[in-house]
Amino acid sequence: MDRVKRSERLGAMTHMLIQNPNRIHTFSEFCELFGSAKSTISEDVNLIADSLSRFDMGAVHTISGAAGGVFYRPSLSINKVRQTLEDLSKTLSANDRILPGGFLYTSDITSDPTVTELLGRIFAMRFWHLSPSFVLTMETKGIPLALMTARALNVPLVVARRDSKAYEGSAVKISYISGDGDHIETMALSRRAVKEGQRTLIIDDFMKGGGTLQGMVDMMNEFKATVVGIGVMISTAIPLEKRCKDVKTLLTLDEMDVSTGKCIVTPSEEFLRALM
Amino acid sequence: MDRVKRSERLGAMTHMLIQNPNRIHTFSEFCELFGSAKSTISEDVNLIADSLSRFDMGAVHTISGAAGGVFYRPSLSINKVRQTLEDLSKTLSANDRILPGGFLYTSDITSDPTVTELLGRIFAMRFWHLSPSFVLTMETKGIPLALMTARALNVPLVVARRDSKAYEGSAVKISYISGDGDHIETMALSRRAVKEGQRTLIIDDFMKGGGTLQGMVDMMNEFKATVVGIGVMISTAIPLEKRCKDVKTLLTLDEMDVSTGKCIVTPSEEFLRALM
Repeated sequence: MDRVKRSERLGAMTHMLIQNPNRIHTFSEFCELFGSAKSTISEDVNLIADSLSRFDMGAVHTISGAAGGVFYRPSLSINKVRQTLEDLSKTLSANDRILPGGFLYTSDITSDPTVTELLGRIFAMRFWHLSPSFVLTMETKGIPLALMTARALNVPLVVARRDSKAYEGSAVKISYISGDGDHIETMALSRRAVKEGQRTLIIDDFMKGGGTLQGMVDMMNEFKATVVGIGVMISTAIPLEKRCKDVKTLLTLDEMDVSTGKCIVTPSEEFLRALM
Repeated sequence: MDRVKRSERLGAMTHMLIQNPNRIHTFSEFCELFGSAKSTISEDVNLIADSLSRFDMGAVHTISGAAGGVFYRPSLSINKVRQTLEDLSKTLSANDRILPGGFLYTSDITSDPTVTELLGRIFAMRFWHLSPSFVLTMETKGIPLALMTARALNVPLVVARRDSKAYEGSAVKISYISGDGDHIETMALSRRAVKEGQRTLIIDDFMKGGGTLQGMVDMMNEFKATVVGIGVMISTAIPLEKRCKDVKTLLTLDEMDVSTGKCIVTPSEEFLRALM
């Protein structure tokens, strides 16, 4: 075995694994590309697996057997997850984030490529054992987070709209009750987007009353699809009772005082425990 | 130098470079993490650079000097770019994509994590020499593409809305003429989102008349920000005259015949030439 060649392969193999999270690469795929024996590739894979796991950069898994291969899971250690959620809580608890009307400004966070990529990994860790067929979100703010979750899971993203659009073809349109119970909202989804029997993971940025999330659950019922999990970035502590049940939240907005501009956001201990 | 240690470093170093495109890592950062000398790390970097470049997986650049370091550019060879755009053209030219009203169905493509990641790399190749401070898009369909472009460039994403939202704080709201000249649309952007003097790269999924893109240009004028580039995934051949000038398109929708369900989408030769 040629030492130079190994070091030449490792960068490219790592790239292939990382760029396509949760996609299975066969050993033959690597053997062909690099002109190496399977045993050599297998050693390479072990080296990459050790290197990534040692520095908390995700896990490389090997599936043995005829249909075997290798795939990369962009998982993080529980310490890294906690650190990420604590850092984010601190950012969101800063004094200048409370807007007139008592809203928390999060748009810079929900569209940040680096933050959403990390949170997408964390959602994927929580939900991949449920084998979702796709990730569903409702426009607009949750899209980056849902996209990064879909990427980490290697599944498509589907985006529900407030209204049907001519350029999305015939659509299913439903009405749902807003979280505060005050008014009726509408939601539309292209009929092409979802097939009967598919498994849906719902991801959104924010839950207060849970009306929009429950709207997405109702929409999936219309499509005869199964909701296998629901995740949000932030959930408010109040109201305690949400319209949508069994939602996994990364962070909780515990308190907000509009008069002092003070708000407290904390990591969800329940979410962290579930990863242990 | 220990052989095992090098092979252990390479996976982790490749991960750090790839996960953070266009971010400069100092040599000290690597030296500290791996407990290695700068000369050793420098050899590692060269091995990774060779490996990635040989298999068309992007470029590792070294900046020498006191403020020096290493960064990864997720560039592709011109052949790979052409192949990507040709594959996408074929997918979009399929018979079942024409919708009632003469619209092209693209929602599955514009929200596909793998496709948008590749297209984001391609946009980044075209625009990074213009040093944008952020990527701007208008909700909804362009968001995944704009996010992946922002990620490849290592800059934030900013999303303009159709209307101002209480949870985005005070906003600038403008009216603009739709591409077909038929009606007036509105666009709103949080005042916190953009600072005077910033350099804006506008990315969207589709241009017909160019009204929405010109609306984004007008919005940037309100913020006293400079538009350094405009990119779209598909531009229609008709109308030839667009409201917005100097737009770089990846693909052109050359023809669409609603009666036969036939449409022709092709890669933009102009875009490809500009990358050579």
